[in-house]
Amino acid sequence: MSGAQGAGVNPSATARDLGALFDPRAVAVLGASNDRSKYGNWISVQALRMQGRRPVYLVNRRGEPVLGEPTHRSLGELPEPVDLVVVAVPSAGFEDAVEDALAAGAKAIVGITAGFGELGAEGRAREAALAARVREAGAVLLGPNCLGVLDSTSGLYLASNPLPAGPVALLSQSGNMALELSRFLIDRDLGFSRFASLGNQADLTVADLIRSCAAHDGTELIAVYCEDFGDGRDFVEVAAEARAAGKPVVLLTVGGSEASVRGARSHTGALTSDTAVIDAACRAAGVDRVSSPREMADLLAMLHRFGDAPARRVAVLADGGGHASVASDIADAHGLSVPEFPAALSEALRGELTPSAGVGNPVDLAGAGEQDITSFARTLDLLLGSPEVDSVLVTGYFGGYGDYGPELAAAELATARVMGERITLLGKPVAVHTMCADSAPAEELRRHGVPVFRAVEDAAQSLGMLARRDPTPRQAPRPRTDAQPVADDGYWTARELVRAAGVALPPAQLAADEAEAVAAARAIGGPVVVKALGLLHKSDSGGVALGLATPETVREAVADMSRRLDPPGFCVEAMADLRDGVELIVGVQRDPRFGPVAMVGLGGIATEVLRDTAFALAPVGRDEALELLSRLRSAALLRGVRGRPGVDLDALADAVAAITEVAAAHPEIAELEVNPLLATPKGCFGLDARIVLDA
Amino acid sequence: MSGAQGAGVNPSATARDLGALFDPRAVAVLGASNDRSKYGNWISVQALRMQGRRPVYLVNRRGEPVLGEPTHRSLGELPEPVDLVVVAVPSAGFEDAVEDALAAGAKAIVGITAGFGELGAEGRAREAALAARVREAGAVLLGPNCLGVLDSTSGLYLASNPLPAGPVALLSQSGNMALELSRFLIDRDLGFSRFASLGNQADLTVADLIRSCAAHDGTELIAVYCEDFGDGRDFVEVAAEARAAGKPVVLLTVGGSEASVRGARSHTGALTSDTAVIDAACRAAGVDRVSSPREMADLLAMLHRFGDAPARRVAVLADGGGHASVASDIADAHGLSVPEFPAALSEALRGELTPSAGVGNPVDLAGAGEQDITSFARTLDLLLGSPEVDSVLVTGYFGGYGDYGPELAAAELATARVMGERITLLGKPVAVHTMCADSAPAEELRRHGVPVFRAVEDAAQSLGMLARRDPTPRQAPRPRTDAQPVADDGYWTARELVRAAGVALPPAQLAADEAEAVAAARAIGGPVVVKALGLLHKSDSGGVALGLATPETVREAVADMSRRLDPPGFCVEAMADLRDGVELIVGVQRDPRFGPVAMVGLGGIATEVLRDTAFALAPVGRDEALELLSRLRSAALLRGVRGRPGVDLDALADAVAAITEVAAAHPEIAELEVNPLLATPKGCFGLDARIVLDA
Repeated sequence: MSGAQGAGVNPSATARDLGALFDPRAVAVLGASNDRSKYGNWISVQALRMQGRRPVYLVNRRGEPVLGEPTHRSLGELPEPVDLVVVAVPSAGFEDAVEDALAAGAKAIVGITAGFGELGAEGRAREAALAARVREAGAVLLGPNCLGVLDSTSGLYLASNPLPAGPVALLSQSGNMALELSRFLIDRDLGFSRFASLGNQADLTVADLIRSCAAHDGTELIAVYCEDFGDGRDFVEVAAEARAAGKPVVLLTVGGSEASVRGARSHTGALTSDTAVIDAACRAAGVDRVSSPREMADLLAMLHRFGDAPARRVAVLADGGGHASVASDIADAHGLSVPEFPAALSEALRGELTPSAGVGNPVDLAGAGEQDITSFARTLDLLLGSPEVDSVLVTGYFGGYGDYGPELAAAELATARVMGERITLLGKPVAVHTMCADSAPAEELRRHGVPVFRAVEDAAQSLGMLARRDPTPRQAPRPRTDAQPVADDGYWTARELVRAAGVALPPAQLAADEAEAVAAARAIGGPVVVKALGLLHKSDSGGVALGLATPETVREAVADMSRRLDPPGFCVEAMADLRDGVELIVGVQRDPRFGPVAMVGLGGIATEVLRDTAFALAPVGRDEALELLSRLRSAALLRGVRGRPGVDLDALADAVAAITEVAAAHPEIAELEVNPLLATPKGCFGLDARIVLDA
Repeated sequence: MSGAQGAGVNPSATARDLGALFDPRAVAVLGASNDRSKYGNWISVQALRMQGRRPVYLVNRRGEPVLGEPTHRSLGELPEPVDLVVVAVPSAGFEDAVEDALAAGAKAIVGITAGFGELGAEGRAREAALAARVREAGAVLLGPNCLGVLDSTSGLYLASNPLPAGPVALLSQSGNMALELSRFLIDRDLGFSRFASLGNQADLTVADLIRSCAAHDGTELIAVYCEDFGDGRDFVEVAAEARAAGKPVVLLTVGGSEASVRGARSHTGALTSDTAVIDAACRAAGVDRVSSPREMADLLAMLHRFGDAPARRVAVLADGGGHASVASDIADAHGLSVPEFPAALSEALRGELTPSAGVGNPVDLAGAGEQDITSFARTLDLLLGSPEVDSVLVTGYFGGYGDYGPELAAAELATARVMGERITLLGKPVAVHTMCADSAPAEELRRHGVPVFRAVEDAAQSLGMLARRDPTPRQAPRPRTDAQPVADDGYWTARELVRAAGVALPPAQLAADEAEAVAAARAIGGPVVVKALGLLHKSDSGGVALGLATPETVREAVADMSRRLDPPGFCVEAMADLRDGVELIVGVQRDPRFGPVAMVGLGGIATEVLRDTAFALAPVGRDEALELLSRLRSAALLRGVRGRPGVDLDALADAVAAITEVAAAHPEIAELEVNPLLATPKGCFGLDARIVLDA
């Protein structure tokens, strides 16, 4: 639970100085090696590329030449201080190596060494101690268990592989995943401003590195693979800042299945979060979450090309009916809308195309490719010019018409050039699928930065990912944590806490016995509910009696519960009128990384069956609460259907906001749940509440 | 609605003789051309490949040599009868060309000509007349608007493109889509037994061609792209027969979005069916439906390699923690299960692997690639040998270790060979993802028929498609259509129809006025419901009064409805007890292609909001009804949750079966709906019924 508190105190919110990490004056590689299967060899190969730009010292304990260069036997023998030391020695020597590095003047240490992660809790404690030692010395540690660092803007090459220069900063917790991501990115002509392998994040966290990259002039996009977010609220803050600074953060992570959580725990001991919590964090931060390395590369390529342009209303441009329809289905499945065109646009298309062409959405050029290849460019122009079209998905055979003869080939290439120029000029997102993805016209489109895909689903997905982006992410505020801790986890405490926060509850009184319960019922008036106190699951253990309309039924209920359950007391409450109401459940749980997370869901018997729930980092404000509720599949029930009145959404949003606020403000509460929260046309009422205190 | 009736009478259920189409003795190409942008050229190029195997005559109306070969000016000038004629002339001359072909002895005509589809209803009528003429002459017509036919087992080359020989019969309604599908299939080393371009299906339908391919020795797999299924029940029957004969049918079609339906209608005038109906048809036929050409090719490759082997319980084998977890998430998202291993398997893995390896599921070799590349093969062997593992997803860097030196490269290649051999021997599905998909070891795996993917989601999807297959599809019976037609669409008629079919309904009596209604209520006993007759939407127009417990309330209700609605009469029914009941909706609608389709759904206010529905071709039997109900998201409600009793599932299934049976038996009923159908622990009751007659 230290993470949960960490999420409050936020020790790392100030930017660390990473100058020595990304632009050191002098560098040493400890553990330089001639063995081609070792990191100490690969890093040395890269490090030597920096000769002439900055001093590079190779350290080999036997002092033998490495890669033809002389070496030193230890850091102590270097002729001058070095501000960055790469440590690539066996992990038994890691602690000593770090001390030596600090003594040699290091302000940045890159721990290639495997670290102690596999030793479990003891290993993590040793790494934490080492990180504290490094911080104390005013230095930073990347890793251990990382595969290096690279900054193409400062000419720093200390990663196991060379990478081309470009706009992407790649931060990865896994070495192999970093390799795969970089390959997919390179395939899409994307190069790297920086690359940092996060390793075990003993000192520098993913948030520290995002913060540095967001402030880095050479970086336009930030790509992150990580399993453990450390201080999750810090991650959210820095990612939101990066997005606000025009540098989108694209995240690949794990936790979507039980198996991946098992896997991540077993290999790094990482504290993973539920995938719904990560989604909530991404929403708060405006982070774009992807599911695979290829998706990440595709989204980064689209963002690099088209930035924040909207994409949802797509025009499908095909040169055959089959492709038109298949692409429309796939676009729809990827969250795009393929709306009918306004009549004027269809008219204009009719003027340009053959009579057999389909001029609605999808557009079907119907053989125009062979007859007049320029119809692709002219149609694209009309579509991009329409204010009702956000983006265009081209699909089919473009690039293949040249096979019919050299004249058509030349015309097709010229058409590709015109299309590329128009797409550049107009700035709207376009994705091209063609079964001739290796053709000269396809290459010409790529030369203009147009994404060209071999499979239509990849093209549609790329546009779909743009379309799903939240244009105005709203960051969850850091929770207040200064509330007076609650005394116990009893029902009455939970009830009072929620009531004090501003949630309307039915009138209630405590009662010790039958007589007090009857008196309370009389004072409250109307039918009442009697609840036995001191039970973890009142309802399931028969500790709740509903709709008691007479003193006799109240007395009987209390007597019965006393006999069966022997509770320390009772709560007598007015019975709520459930007609025209919708039962919801609102809960807040603490995630070890991201702190308090709010959940709203459809309540009642259907909750468990339908699992219609939505999550957000807590606290959520009134507007966020409305947005959260709108994400429920059953949101229409709240607005009213088939003559049923809608509920009082303002009151409901206020209640959700109040519940999340109070739960977030109490770090000692691991879980707070109001269930049911009854939303009616005339207000919103908490009918039961429950808290679980931190163990 | 002719299609709906067609689904009953099934004119084409007997196999047509397609011998002249797929293995003709002599062939003529009418419209042979030297113009490289014309089908008459492309087909002639292919046709001439058959010289020596069978007589090939090129017909050019000017009699000029084509492709260096002499031509005839007309079919009438040929020296001998030809049993197959390809017609590639402008559509104005199509009808004459068909007559000439029949006169020349043709038993099969391949209509490349565009046909008259773009002329709308008139064009379709002309095509239908032509098809009738061809049938009358004992011949068959493929197309028009098709791009040819090919049979690699008989050496028939009459398609626009050459295709390699192999096990797949490809049937496609779209020319460009056929091209794309064939390219993806060729990329996966799949060749073609047959290819037929369906075109407008004026005569030969997709079902005719599936039937022929299912009986064709050279065909192992049938790939179909089509938008219009013609007689949908015939399609279902022949596809089920093909599947039962061990020849799976993989279908790509459209209709998943409004836009694709718009597109298909505009370009072929095709009658498309709702995507849920097509899914129901595929389920009945055991057809594997895919969403894109690439998916189709991947599934065909998996089926060709692994056949009907189960795949659901997948073991993930990775060489790094990141890949282990990402692959697990993606496998899970594609419907695979990544279960924990039995302890004995983890033990066995522990014995083979380094201490830092993860030996649960996912397996993480954790660096074993560099240290001992054979661990891939040994681990794979253990996984494939476990009875608790259906399939294996390999993910990561395999194929790249050879970069560390020639010795490791040789060992890696040898390991790939061993893996390939073991996979072949054991027969369980394996998909390999590697970021080194072009490496020699990856090629070695492919040489053994192991599918190797560049993106992990494509690998997982391929296994997921195998896992989702229904191992024992049960074909829906052809509906009986011999029932006495109903007289009208009134409520009482609907009620009696459903009651006679065996559905329990509350006792009811007709009443003309207040007095009769009061008498009826007294005879029935207990609280009653009064419904006004003769209204399309009784409930919405205030024509239903519930829970009338006294003669006065009955009288008032009838008086009120008489005043407001002036109905022709009333139905007085016993009020059902809704407690512990689950309200369902059961309906049957006629699809123009697939005939009667049953829908079950969660009823009540939630129906429209949650759209929790499931579809099947009607009629459904008792077992199918249970399966159908189990597909509802809310199925757990029926089985009972949190102390609520389950409903009488047998009675519910019987009622669903009876409703679908009676609706299917009445072709004059366009729609029958029982809503609500109340399922309770003590039986199942139809509380309201409605029919819509065919217009």
